[in-house]
This record gives sequence, structure tokens and C-alpha cells, in this order.
Amino acid sequence: MSNYQAPVKEMLFAVNELAGLAEVSQLPDFGDATLDLVEAILNEAAQLAADVIAPTNVIGDTKGTRIEDGTVRVPEEFAAAYREFTAGGWGGIAQSAAIGGQGLPYVVGLAVEEMWQAANLAWSLCPLLSQGAVHAIEDHADTDLRELLLGPMVEGRWTGTMNLTEPQAGSDLAAIRTQASRDGDGYRITGQKIYITWGDHDMTENVIHLVLARLDDAPEGVKGLSLFAVPKRLINSDGSCGELNGVSPVSVEHKLGIHGSPTCVMAYENAFGYLVGEPNRGLACMFTMMNHARLGVGLEGVAISERAYQQALAYAKDRVQGRAPGHPGRVSIIHHPDVRRMLLSMKSQIEAMRAVTYVTGACLDHALHHPDPDARARYQARVDLMTPVVKGWCTETSQSLASMGVQVHGGMGYVEETGAAQHYRDARITTIYEGTTGIQANDFVGRKILRDGGQALQTLIADIRAVDADLARYGDALGTIRGGVADGCDQLAGATSWLLASYERDAWIPGAVAHSLLMLTGTVTGGWQMARAAVAASDHLAGDAGDREFYEAKIITARFFAEQIMPMAAAYRRAIEYGSDTVMALSEDQF
Amino acid sequence: MSNYQAPVKEMLFAVNELAGLAEVSQLPDFGDATLDLVEAILNEAAQLAADVIAPTNVIGDTKGTRIEDGTVRVPEEFAAAYREFTAGGWGGIAQSAAIGGQGLPYVVGLAVEEMWQAANLAWSLCPLLSQGAVHAIEDHADTDLRELLLGPMVEGRWTGTMNLTEPQAGSDLAAIRTQASRDGDGYRITGQKIYITWGDHDMTENVIHLVLARLDDAPEGVKGLSLFAVPKRLINSDGSCGELNGVSPVSVEHKLGIHGSPTCVMAYENAFGYLVGEPNRGLACMFTMMNHARLGVGLEGVAISERAYQQALAYAKDRVQGRAPGHPGRVSIIHHPDVRRMLLSMKSQIEAMRAVTYVTGACLDHALHHPDPDARARYQARVDLMTPVVKGWCTETSQSLASMGVQVHGGMGYVEETGAAQHYRDARITTIYEGTTGIQANDFVGRKILRDGGQALQTLIADIRAVDADLARYGDALGTIRGGVADGCDQLAGATSWLLASYERDAWIPGAVAHSLLMLTGTVTGGWQMARAAVAASDHLAGDAGDREFYEAKIITARFFAEQIMPMAAAYRRAIEYGSDTVMALSEDQF
Repeated sequence: MSNYQAPVKEMLFAVNELAGLAEVSQLPDFGDATLDLVEAILNEAAQLAADVIAPTNVIGDTKGTRIEDGTVRVPEEFAAAYREFTAGGWGGIAQSAAIGGQGLPYVVGLAVEEMWQAANLAWSLCPLLSQGAVHAIEDHADTDLRELLLGPMVEGRWTGTMNLTEPQAGSDLAAIRTQASRDGDGYRITGQKIYITWGDHDMTENVIHLVLARLDDAPEGVKGLSLFAVPKRLINSDGSCGELNGVSPVSVEHKLGIHGSPTCVMAYENAFGYLVGEPNRGLACMFTMMNHARLGVGLEGVAISERAYQQALAYAKDRVQGRAPGHPGRVSIIHHPDVRRMLLSMKSQIEAMRAVTYVTGACLDHALHHPDPDARARYQARVDLMTPVVKGWCTETSQSLASMGVQVHGGMGYVEETGAAQHYRDARITTIYEGTTGIQANDFVGRKILRDGGQALQTLIADIRAVDADLARYGDALGTIRGGVADGCDQLAGATSWLLASYERDAWIPGAVAHSLLMLTGTVTGGWQMARAAVAASDHLAGDAGDREFYEAKIITARFFAEQIMPMAAAYRRAIEYGSDTVMALSEDQF
Repeated sequence: MSNYQAPVKEMLFAVNELAGLAEVSQLPDFGDATLDLVEAILNEAAQLAADVIAPTNVIGDTKGTRIEDGTVRVPEEFAAAYREFTAGGWGGIAQSAAIGGQGLPYVVGLAVEEMWQAANLAWSLCPLLSQGAVHAIEDHADTDLRELLLGPMVEGRWTGTMNLTEPQAGSDLAAIRTQASRDGDGYRITGQKIYITWGDHDMTENVIHLVLARLDDAPEGVKGLSLFAVPKRLINSDGSCGELNGVSPVSVEHKLGIHGSPTCVMAYENAFGYLVGEPNRGLACMFTMMNHARLGVGLEGVAISERAYQQALAYAKDRVQGRAPGHPGRVSIIHHPDVRRMLLSMKSQIEAMRAVTYVTGACLDHALHHPDPDARARYQARVDLMTPVVKGWCTETSQSLASMGVQVHGGMGYVEETGAAQHYRDARITTIYEGTTGIQANDFVGRKILRDGGQALQTLIADIRAVDADLARYGDALGTIRGGVADGCDQLAGATSWLLASYERDAWIPGAVAHSLLMLTGTVTGGWQMARAAVAASDHLAGDAGDREFYEAKIITARFFAEQIMPMAAAYRRAIEYGSDTVMALSEDQF
């Protein structure tokens, strides 16, 4: 099994040249985020990821979690890694300095987070959920509650969770039944929640659950949901932890992967909770957390693919099998064209996904910190548009990439001890939690495209087309890439026009074409970012740059994406333009 | 968890209307294989699959296998199912009557075999391998050895295995080191084999291992391999089993899936063996077995996808979540367009894969039994061409279909108890064993296309084009399907012409484009068979046929394939025509 080494050079390239660190660092508050500082931070994080966190990955997969004396026990190695993580202040890296964080840009936080995810996906979910909970509390809780909770949460002394799902209410939050009743200054929460990631554990002294529930007099549906913060242990007025509250883990799920992450059924029995934000506005509060988490899960698609790639690459360089033209004797399998095809398919799509995710992250920095309100609105529209694409496309792509990681190993890939299979099993959750791909696709088409008449998407398409002039500067050298982006753009523009012209005549069209349009958008934006990468690399090569091998590889990798991945765009468009007739034609019995 | 019910009506349709049972039953020896008889057989097999074999699937996954006292122990439920299976004579269903089989066509055997595979993939590997061993012995062993081994093997009292792989020799059989020395009338075999499926078990009194090894004076490479039959227990002159031979299981692998199938490391220490066929011609003998097994593993792609589909369909009909246009109240998720898209994607590709596999199976019946030698040669050429496509394309497709099966379940899909995850884990082996997809693709391009200058493939393309006239008879009603097949055919023909014109100038081209060409061929032949199915269904509907819902569904399903799957053909072709430059451009360090 290969260890994980964060691809710091790749990450820096994406943060700096594609996500525009220079512009981000001109935003108020981010002046310190120079390239040198970011490089130092990434190197430090890479070391922690490789030396401390990555070695716990197999341990978590093998040992799993269990409930003992009413508490979830996770592997002790996880707690040791968590202690080093919090001691370094990593949990608050992109949290604002006002609440005790490091105050670095979100895009820098993404690069760091990718490392924890790749090192140990199951473990990384604990800080991921905690950071989401911090955002929701920071944005929506009143001053007293913020003061009570944020310090220990940013520090990492307490962790946070997100409690939405109930047995009858998965994608459909309107069906939530958990009840909340006023009790003095607080509330009493009663109900059952399922699929609660890191719902309980023994790594910290307290866990803050953010819980969607209904007040006694609340209206039906999603407009009757309120958000509550329910601590595992009651919090004394001095901020110390007191008795256990009325919330406890009932069981942990036996899952396909992420065995080290306790997925809990949680029972709330008259548990004391604090209201977060306004009554009946819980969904809006939860969306703050959810959108953060959706970008984070999209990033998981990048991270687990990178881990699978590193494992496959190490094997392909090591395993000797067969012969190849021009080579005397037997060769390592990286010499075989079909193995190279798989590795390049992984490499090119990982780099494309990373760029799309980081660029979206930088947009979030601008959306939150840009001095100009119009600019903030423009960036926010891009973030809103791209969040379901990052979540849906990166995680769907990670399924095929983790599978290729297994395939490169041949029979060894199917043997658990090799490690490739764990990445494959772990990756499989990413298209499901924080909203399935179907939910992302419906959000993308319904809320992000149709609601503004396609304006945000048209702006994106115009931005993509603008790269053409840069590509043209390099003539034939980037000709394939230029053709690929132009074609992909035409497909996306055509499919979008078709949707806008067609959806009003048939209520089934948005749902029927949503998946393909999401994948089409991911593919084209991925190709766009690879094209930008190729231009940046060409600029470096035209100068006196060192690292020529790196920049040359970048151009070849972008070309592979244009040749082998971008042709999918036309296939998605054709599928879209057939609309919903066939999808809806079968009766239930005809399936 | 849903039980498995074999789709007998679908299978009969594929055997009868697509694979041409009427023509097959006109072959010498198959006169009894009337539609009525085949229907009765499939119904009987379906009952055994549902009642006896399918219930062992989760048991095998949970209990796994272990070595105890030098023998592999499999779950006792497996042995009970195996007893019922052999008592019914199912192991010999498609073996010739001359050796004690039922003498039914291979294509009928495929339909029956699909049931065992879907019911319990891990368990089904034992009869699959045994039947392959019987073929190799029947075709290549001398009379005495055939008489010694075939009776008990066809009856199912003994099982068979296939021993190729060694630690240094996976895809690369030239690297095999296991040694064989002459000893009286027999041979002594010494060496170690790995990844031996059902290499040992406690279900039968004996196991016959077919082992590739090198005679003392053999040349290097694949031309020095001979095939030996090595029994677990020595066989007495009266055919009874005697002492243990010098072959034993060393360990069983801890695998991602098919936990009920013991994958063994086998140690041969001076084990007594019989030579099968000529010395140094072992590879040819093994290929008899391997080609049989490759079609069988392609069929596994169909079977595991069908099982995953049934599970997902049952869940989609049962699970209530959300609302849908035109429906008051909450609906079962089968009403949501994106869920229907996933289910139809599964259904249409399963039916396409099944048709391609069965049609290839019927070609094998003609290749073996047609009275006209020219016809036999023509059919054999088609079987040779299609074997890697059936193996590669069906198993690759099964990866995404088993994944969709998980996805339809949302969070429940990731919980092992649901059962969807087992199908996903089990399916993952199919692209690896009996030759990885890369090996199939190289076989397809190298041996099956370039060696005859593309003749067999051009003949296939011409056959595909011939369906156009039938489709035209139904005008607009089958217009989308007609357009889809025509376009797919153009893409396949174009890519083939490009390959034939290009491969001589660049030795890397065949390997670089092989995977895409294999997938392109699978996609287009799948669409072709769905088009044939739509024509047959339209013919029925034009008459007085009952089952109108079935035939209408068939047309809609074929249209879905044409709309959503066939557009991939153009993407594969574009990727192919970029050739090998980019794939081969990176140095090892640049990955």
C-alpha cells in the first residue's frame, strides 16, 4: 500500500494560477495570504497529512467504530491524530480571526482540507462537519450563543454535527417530525435522526448537534423547520461541560466504506437545545452549513481520486508484466498504453476537478469579502451555480476514477490488503450524502438555471468562451485544446438554449435532463480550467521558467482531457435534447 | 433485501427472437430444443435459482470461506444448494449427451447460467469453472483421460479449476514457472499458483485442477507451456477417489466481494498429474477453457446488473419520498424522472448486454454444429470477434449499473444490510478475472481485427446496417432508433477505417485505442440488438399478440438506449482518432 503525499506543487498551481490567489489576497483581511505563506502552510499540512493522518486510514477501515457504555468508540489512533490536528490550529484555518480562526482565504482552506480527506476520508468528516456547524452558528446564532459555542468549536475542543435525516425524511426534508417545545430560555427536543456523521465519538469532551425540528405551533412542510443547537453535554454558564444531555447514539451503521466514521442513529429525548436563528427559518440556516458541506464533499471526490491515483501510479511503476514496443525484456506496466490511458484519465480529471473546486472556492472568498456589493453578488451567483456542479460532477467522476484505481492493479486490486479497494468503497458515499447527485442536479436546473432564466449559466458560458483568445495565442500547439473547449461550449450553450425553450411545455423536462446537464457543465468547466492551465503553463514555458517538465506535463494532461473526456459533452447534449418523453413513458409495471 | 426472480420472459425473448432458437434447433443434435421445452427448462431453473440458490447469497457474503485442517470450508448452505443443483443435472445442461450432459444448445445454457450467477455470483463460479474444465478435457484429452474424468465432472460429483496465474505471471503467461517432470505414465507438478477460484472446497469428494506448467525441456515463453490435470485426490483405476495428492490450498484471499467464493493460493509439491493434449501446446488447450469462461464472465456482467436492477426497482417502487407533478401527496421515488433515468439506464443496458451475449452464444452453437464447414467458419469468426466484446463491455457496463443500483437507494444503498452494496462489490471482480478489460481490448484489436485486416469486423458492421430496412418499415415510430443505429454504425465504421489506415505507422496505436474501440463496438452492437428487439416487438404489436405491455416496453427501452447510450459512440470514436501521441507523451516521472 502506498502512503499519501499531498501534491503540493499541483495544489499551489491551482490556488495561484487558476483560482487567482493574487486577487484573493487583495481582498480585505487576506493581505497576508502571499504565495510564500500559502506554500509554507501547504507544506506543513502535507507533512501532517502524510506522517500523522494517512497512517490511520487502514486502521479506521479495519477497526471501525462501536458503541460501548452509551458512547461511540473510534480507533484510538484517530484521537491521537485529532489532537495533533487541533494543536496545530488546523480546524480553524479558514475560519475568521474574529472567532479564533486563522483567517486565511477559503480557497487555501480547500487545499489543506483536500489533504486531510485524501489522507483519511472517514476521519476528515469530523472536522468537515464541525467547520460547517461553525459557519451556521457564526452566521445565524445570536451573540450569546455564538460566544458560548464558537470558541471551543473553532479550537477543536468540541465538534459539530448536522442532523437532518429521519427514516421517512431523506431527500424530502418536509417530512421531518422531530419536535421542539419551548422550555424557559431554551427548548426541549424529542425525535430520532439517522445517518448522523460523527454523531458521537470519544475524541472530544463535547459534541454540538445542529438539529432540524418543528416547534409545537409550526406550519407543515419545510417552512415549519427550526434549527437548534443541542450539546451532548450541557454547558455550564462558565462554558465548562456538565451533565449528559438527553441525546445519545442508538447504533452505528455497518457500511460499505468510511468504516472509521461513525454513522449514527441519534435519539433525542427531551434534550435541551438552543434556537439558532429565527423560528421556522431553520432550513435557511441549515443551507449555510449544507452549501459549505456540499463544496467540501465535492472536494472529497477530488481527494479520494487523488489517493486512488497515487496508489495506482505506484503500482504501475513497480509491477513488471509483459513486453512493450521498443523495450528489451519485460517492462513495468506503466509502459502499456492502456495502463497509461487509465492513469492519464485519472490525472487529467483530478486536475480538472481540483481546479473547478478551488476556483469556486476563490469565488466564495470574493463573494464574502469583496468591497463592491455588485461584485459580491456576481461572485455569489457563480458560487450558487457551481456548488451543485462541484458536488455532483466531482463525486460522480470519483466513482469511475476510484474504479480505475482498482483496475490498474489487476487481481491485486480486488484483494483488500492492497488498499485500492478501500478507496473504491470509501468513494462510494460521496454521491449520496449531503444530497444525492439527483438532488444536486435538480437544484442546479431548478434553482440555479431556470429561476434566473439561465442568466448565471450564460455568464459562465461567456467566461469560458473568453479563454479562446488566450489559446489562440499559441496556435497549433494548443489547437486540440482550443477545439475541445469551443466544442464543449457549443454543446453546453445549445443544451441550455434547448432547456430554456422547452421546459415550460413539459413539467418533466427539468428532472429528466438535470443529471446530464450537470455532468455536461462539469465536463465543460473542467475542460475550461484545463485550458486555462495549459495557457498558464505555456506562458511559463515561453519565459525562463524552471519546472519545464511540470509545465509540459500540464499541457499534455490538458490535451488528454480535450481528446478523451471533452467528447462526452456532445453525448450529454444529445441525451438532453431528447427530453422527457422516453424517460416518463413506462408504467410502473413495465419496468 | 429483494429476492431474485429470473426474468424468464425477457430471457425467452432474447433466446428465441434475437438469438434465433428456431435456427439453432435445426442444427443436428438440437432438434428437441423447441420453444416449449426451453420455456419449461427456464421456468424450472428459475424456481431453483429463487428458492434454493438466491437465499445463500448473503450467507456467503457474510460467512465467507476459511481453511481448516488443510481444506477450504465454504458455508454449509452452499453445499446444500450444490446438491440440489447436481441432482437436477443442471451442471451438464449444455454439455454434450455423449459425455453425460443434457445436450441442449449453448445459448439455452447461457440463459440458465445467468440465473445461477444472478442468484449467487460467488457460488456460481464453481459450476462455471467446472464446465470450462470439462470443455478443455473433452476437446484435448486422450480417450483414457476423458473416460476417467468426464463422467464425474459432468455429473457434478467432482468440480474443476483453472490454474494459470503465479505471483510474477498474471496477464503475462510467458512468465509461468511451475514445473512438470515425467514420472512413469504421468507427471509430477511443482510450483505455486495464485487467484485460483474455487481452488479447494468441501462440497465434493474431488477437485480436478487444470494447471499450466513447463516440462523440464520446454522452450521459454508461452510456447513452453503444457496443460496438466491434477486431481486433489488420486484416482484409483476403478474411478474411485484415493489418497490426497500433493496439492493443497495455502490460503484464501480477503477480497472486496464474492466472499463466498474461495480464491486460493495453491501449492503443488510433486503432485501427480495427467498431461492434457500435446506437450507445449497447453496454451491452446487452456484457451478452450478460457474462451468459454470469458463468455461466462461477460454473462456475469449481465447477471449481476440484473440482480442490482431488481433490488433497485423494488426499492424505487416502495420508498415514498417527495412530490411529483400531477400527483397529489407524496410519491414513491419511481415517479421521479432522475430515478426513472437510472432504472431505464439499467434496464436498457441489461437487455442490450443480454442480447449481445446470447446472440454470441447462438453463434457458438452454429460454429460447433452447423453441417456446412464454411458456415461453421463464419460463425466461429463472429464468436472470436465478439468474445472479448462480451467479456469486456458487459463487465465494464456492469460497474456503472451496479453503482446505479446503490445510488437509487440513497443512504440505504451504502448500508451493507440493504444488499445493494454486495452486488456492487461482487460486480467489481468481473472486469479483472479471466483477463482484464485491457487484455480483452488488446485481444480484440490485435488478434480479432488487425490479424484479418478488419474482415470479421466489417462483416459485423454490414450485418448491423442490414437492420435499417426492418426499422424503416415502421417509419417514424422507430425513427429515433433507426437514426441511433445508423449513427453508431458510422462511428464504428469510421473508427475501424481510421485504425486500419493508421496502425502501421505507430506501434502504440492499437494499445492506445483498444479500450475505446471495444467499448464502441459493445455500445453499437448493443444498440443493434435493441433495434432488432424493437422490430420484433413491433411485428408482434402489428399482429394480434398478447403481452402488448411487454412489447411496448421493449420499444421504449430500445428508444432509451438509442437516445441516452448510443450518443457515447461518437465520443469513443473521437477519442480513438486522436491516436496514441498524447497517451504516450508523458515520461514516467511526469505522471
